[in-house]
Amino acid sequence: MIVVMRIDSDEEQRDGVVRRIESLGLRGEIVHGEQRKVIAVLGQVYPELRDELATLDGVDQVLRISRPYKLASREVRERDTVVELPYGVSIGSGRPVVMAGPCAIESEEQLRETAARVRQSGAHILRGGAFKPRTSPYSFHGLGLEALEMLQRAGREFGMPVITELLSERDVDVVAEHSDVLQIGTRNMQNFVLLSEAGKTGKPVMLKRGLSATIEEWLLSAEYILTQGNPDVILCERGVRTFETQTRNTLDLNAVALVKRLSHLPVIVDPSHGTGHWYLVGPMATAGLAVGADGLMIEVHPDPDRALSDGAQSLTPEHFDELMQEASALGNAVGRPLAERPAVAVQGGAR
Amino acid sequence: MIVVMRIDSDEEQRDGVVRRIESLGLRGEIVHGEQRKVIAVLGQVYPELRDELATLDGVDQVLRISRPYKLASREVRERDTVVELPYGVSIGSGRPVVMAGPCAIESEEQLRETAARVRQSGAHILRGGAFKPRTSPYSFHGLGLEALEMLQRAGREFGMPVITELLSERDVDVVAEHSDVLQIGTRNMQNFVLLSEAGKTGKPVMLKRGLSATIEEWLLSAEYILTQGNPDVILCERGVRTFETQTRNTLDLNAVALVKRLSHLPVIVDPSHGTGHWYLVGPMATAGLAVGADGLMIEVHPDPDRALSDGAQSLTPEHFDELMQEASALGNAVGRPLAERPAVAVQGGAR
Amino acid sequence: MIVVMRIDSDEEQRDGVVRRIESLGLRGEIVHGEQRKVIAVLGQVYPELRDELATLDGVDQVLRISRPYKLASREVRERDTVVELPYGVSIGSGRPVVMAGPCAIESEEQLRETAARVRQSGAHILRGGAFKPRTSPYSFHGLGLEALEMLQRAGREFGMPVITELLSERDVDVVAEHSDVLQIGTRNMQNFVLLSEAGKTGKPVMLKRGLSATIEEWLLSAEYILTQGNPDVILCERGVRTFETQTRNTLDLNAVALVKRLSHLPVIVDPSHGTGHWYLVGPMATAGLAVGADGLMIEVHPDPDRALSDGAQSLTPEHFDELMQEASALGNAVGRPLAERPAVAVQGGAR
Amino acid sequence: MIVVMRIDSDEEQRDGVVRRIESLGLRGEIVHGEQRKVIAVLGQVYPELRDELATLDGVDQVLRISRPYKLASREVRERDTVVELPYGVSIGSGRPVVMAGPCAIESEEQLRETAARVRQSGAHILRGGAFKPRTSPYSFHGLGLEALEMLQRAGREFGMPVITELLSERDVDVVAEHSDVLQIGTRNMQNFVLLSEAGKTGKPVMLKRGLSATIEEWLLSAEYILTQGNPDVILCERGVRTFETQTRNTLDLNAVALVKRLSHLPVIVDPSHGTGHWYLVGPMATAGLAVGADGLMIEVHPDPDRALSDGAQSLTPEHFDELMQEASALGNAVGRPLAERPAVAVQGGAR
Repeated sequence: MIVVMRIDSDEEQRDGVVRRIESLGLRGEIVHGEQRKVIAVLGQVYPELRDELATLDGVDQVLRISRPYKLASREVRERDTVVELPYGVSIGSGRPVVMAGPCAIESEEQLRETAARVRQSGAHILRGGAFKPRTSPYSFHGLGLEALEMLQRAGREFGMPVITELLSERDVDVVAEHSDVLQIGTRNMQNFVLLSEAGKTGKPVMLKRGLSATIEEWLLSAEYILTQGNPDVILCERGVRTFETQTRNTLDLNAVALVKRLSHLPVIVDPSHGTGHWYLVGPMATAGLAVGADGLMIEVHPDPDRALSDGAQSLTPEHFDELMQEASALGNAVGRPLAERPAVAVQGGAR
Repeated sequence: MIVVMRIDSDEEQRDGVVRRIESLGLRGEIVHGEQRKVIAVLGQVYPELRDELATLDGVDQVLRISRPYKLASREVRERDTVVELPYGVSIGSGRPVVMAGPCAIESEEQLRETAARVRQSGAHILRGGAFKPRTSPYSFHGLGLEALEMLQRAGREFGMPVITELLSERDVDVVAEHSDVLQIGTRNMQNFVLLSEAGKTGKPVMLKRGLSATIEEWLLSAEYILTQGNPDVILCERGVRTFETQTRNTLDLNAVALVKRLSHLPVIVDPSHGTGHWYLVGPMATAGLAVGADGLMIEVHPDPDRALSDGAQSLTPEHFDELMQEASALGNAVGRPLAERPAVAVQGGAR
Repeated sequence: MIVVMRIDSDEEQRDGVVRRIESLGLRGEIVHGEQRKVIAVLGQVYPELRDELATLDGVDQVLRISRPYKLASREVRERDTVVELPYGVSIGSGRPVVMAGPCAIESEEQLRETAARVRQSGAHILRGGAFKPRTSPYSFHGLGLEALEMLQRAGREFGMPVITELLSERDVDVVAEHSDVLQIGTRNMQNFVLLSEAGKTGKPVMLKRGLSATIEEWLLSAEYILTQGNPDVILCERGVRTFETQTRNTLDLNAVALVKRLSHLPVIVDPSHGTGHWYLVGPMATAGLAVGADGLMIEVHPDPDRALSDGAQSLTPEHFDELMQEASALGNAVGRPLAERPAVAVQGGAR
Repeated sequence: MIVVMRIDSDEEQRDGVVRRIESLGLRGEIVHGEQRKVIAVLGQVYPELRDELATLDGVDQVLRISRPYKLASREVRERDTVVELPYGVSIGSGRPVVMAGPCAIESEEQLRETAARVRQSGAHILRGGAFKPRTSPYSFHGLGLEALEMLQRAGREFGMPVITELLSERDVDVVAEHSDVLQIGTRNMQNFVLLSEAGKTGKPVMLKRGLSATIEEWLLSAEYILTQGNPDVILCERGVRTFETQTRNTLDLNAVALVKRLSHLPVIVDPSHGTGHWYLVGPMATAGLAVGADGLMIEVHPDPDRALSDGAQSLTPEHFDELMQEASALGNAVGRPLAERPAVAVQGGAR
């Protein structure tokens, strides 16, 4: 930490700051600049120290120089984290994966039809919402436990790991029991209790970025999961809020490129929520792969204009199939081909 | 809802939209504009309908015309909501109240000292954090249950209703038992499960605005509490995120004036979090009263530069006393004097 | 400037940075932190240096510690700037002034009627737009030179200094000739050529804050005027862009309080543009005075719903009169009464 | 336009709105919704009408249904605009082009060296700043006219069209004389006088998006150029401001995909300013092509850490060469190969 003194600060004030620093078992080193003095704080600082020093007499501002996250940082662990899932699927291995399925699970039939189609087009992981966070209390909130069971069955039937959103502390166990990955949604990115509880399950957790979160805040939220001893955190960029009102959100691909540099955790891109318009999903999905994402999350619905949730941003199975072909071509061109899909003796036997 | 058709849409597409509208038991009325046709949807629409119609052929966009919140709206209930609390304190009565106390409760001594001082200066309600949501897992997270008990004791000792933040579903009962008002923090504004659970307790709930929430989203979150049959919702503006980095947040007083017009719920202003600097708290507090707020929430600490949380934005008891005098003068000048503080046989025995 | 090295940087890289610093005639002092080394740059740094050092091997980031503006800073000049205008009006003297008039000057009659009314209600300065910046090329763009002349005549008739917006370099002379204060609008806050040209006229310049400008950028733009040797810069907060769509902008009163601390320049608040709704103008105007503004700028139109520009945010003369009474009461309550208005036998009748 | 009436509005108020609409030569048609009445305004509406109707008694809000830009809209002109430049280069033809060169022209040698290298790597257009808009008056502002001449010479020498920024009305002629494309920078996106003057030259104009501009505002600014009878407008996305402080800006690729749908104008992506870090330029450039951009603008400097402007985001010629290879591969993979570069015997000889 660096304490920047006011231009008009005097020696007594500087001594006061140094004394306070030393009273905490740290060391303060005064650097005499042209205009200002600054005091470097040496030793093991902690986040609160910034506020404590900022209020002392003669202090102009306090600058932080270390990154506040540790376990998530590539400075601490250089090698990419690879998250292993059932059916031989892994995330972060250098070969992108695709998660696809309906926004909300509406019926066994809707889910199975979608799963069959996306599996056939080459998707690796099946997504589907059982508990839906909705801005309005008057909207459809998902089928709950029933949907969890449908999802688990569909995953087994089609040989795909499954992912679904965890909305509440009380559902942690049941969601962990039915799903291979727990998703924490954008509105819960700073629901720290939920993060810790999800971390404790030991299951992989996919953490969506908050609507107006900085990258540092996002990585600090990942840190809440990692500090539970759970290394399997997957980040998901799903669009930030900007002043543009013609798109639902603004998918931030800069963040993907930057996070890959700052952290060893895998990053997924969700162009469905990130744009809110089905016709922007394809372009932004391929752009996401070009920028280095470890995978995509795509909403697919057999009949989007009758979807109970997010129809406007869902692809039809036909459009999804086209997208997979484009994604595949692009992955090859940039030297990061999509992950292979083990031929699964699906639909059959051993369920 | 109004469906705006593309300029190049044809009759068949318009008929398709009308047929879909009618299949839902609603009515569609085509209005022939100079350039475009638009179709008005008549009947009881629902939020999802917007997405459903937006994906139909020939549709340019779908505009919503009703406000999606109902119970929180002044169009539905014109008269101001007044929330009654113990010790004769009420919020929303036209006479502003002041909530004051430490950001985090650190010890019985710190809390009692603060409570005594703010009570003496005329504060109406005692605040104090037991569970602290912190961006970093490495920060101080509050003393938990122990702090809840200290808060309840201090409230009784000094004759003040108390308010504290509820962070987790599992703490709903214990917080409701110890506190007169449940506070939902900015990071949980869209933690819909927590909102509903808080609503069910029947206790007054103070709902802070999310860091980048629109007013509509804020009122929809209030609606989650109101739909539990709990009318006692208090809104709290505590600053939104803007591009300015020299203040922690930007206290949005426009929103206060506008919400008082859109809704009957009382609105509190929190200039401590709203600015992040103790020296901005006084000016913004008085400005908040000038703009029509029903009260203030102020962080006070006997020794701010040794606070375990938010020291930079806490007032000393001396500064708080000055603030109360300014607030009082301003309240009188704008015809909304601060609420009276019943002389309490405080500090004494028998309660 | 402080160069923060990467955790894994080595001695050779640190030496490289120090050598580069020394090659520029500056001095580099290495500070050995617990985790990282940082290098303090001593001597007269310049803005570009940040980028130059940031790209060197082993560097993590470069932090600036001085404020980049000088003439506008209260650290350089502690005493408040007071801008003197004709008719005994001064801005920044501790007693707030009110600027009022129509958004756009539409006719001699409209302007004179408005001027008479606002003068009577106690306004100090007459505003009126001759050149209007409009988002759309298809909107009304003002009457130009003709309006400038009307404004000058009205100012003389009613004994008020006048202010109008300068939009183009080619109009600098003519606007300076007809107006007592040159206004630079929000869209031109970083039109650096225009700033310099306005500064050269020697006339007072009122600089509106850009729609998404930080306070530092705003003060740097003021610096462009000040470096022309023109000390008479007035700042004007007129609302920033936020995610809220129900108000045109979000008037940022935090910024007013903070700028008064950082700079000696006077600050005016414009709640008409800052909110976009006439019914929010009154509350935000009084709040602006409570927070320490040196004055207000208010749009008044004799017939707002027939205004050619910004009708929705204009007050009627009656509403303006009420506002002046509230502003006056509030100014008295906070110990900053509105500036006196010399009883004007108005500059000798017959003009 | 649609006038939404308040729930509690009465017949008299609705009649008042209709009468006002009719007095303007338009027609008002009342639609009777379940909860509210709305009034559709039929006929040739104009932007100001919205404000005029919004202030009438009983009106809740006024919704616009047409897009306010016309000439820029794909609804008006479906076919892509192709801008033809010297040396057989065209923009918008379906095959992306690359503009490259130094942020600021510092010397003839620096410019020629850069031009030679980027030409060799396959760049199509040479960029270089002569007039630099800088946030601080104390920064380097470019070499002006001298640099314009160097740029023109280098373009001729290496057989490349050139582009440079126009900062001031007084420079319009001289810039138009020396440059093949006039660039309007982000800070001048709403400098409407400059837009019109640039349009009048008849030269192609590249219009950068404002730092916090919506897409609609951007297209309306393009409209200012188009209404001068100049069809050759090129849009350039260069990053918007978000809350992220680790990147200079956030390159908004959503906007590129959406603008290609809304407008027929070509769109260039500038990842150098869009990210501010040279190591993010490559990933975002290829992502820009994946999303459908008509070209890239890249800052290249032979010695970035000694650049007088924007060194941190400039590529070395070596890195630029790698980027061109990646861009080329990606263009081929998505079916939009980079435009051919005619083998230039470079304009005949006299080098």
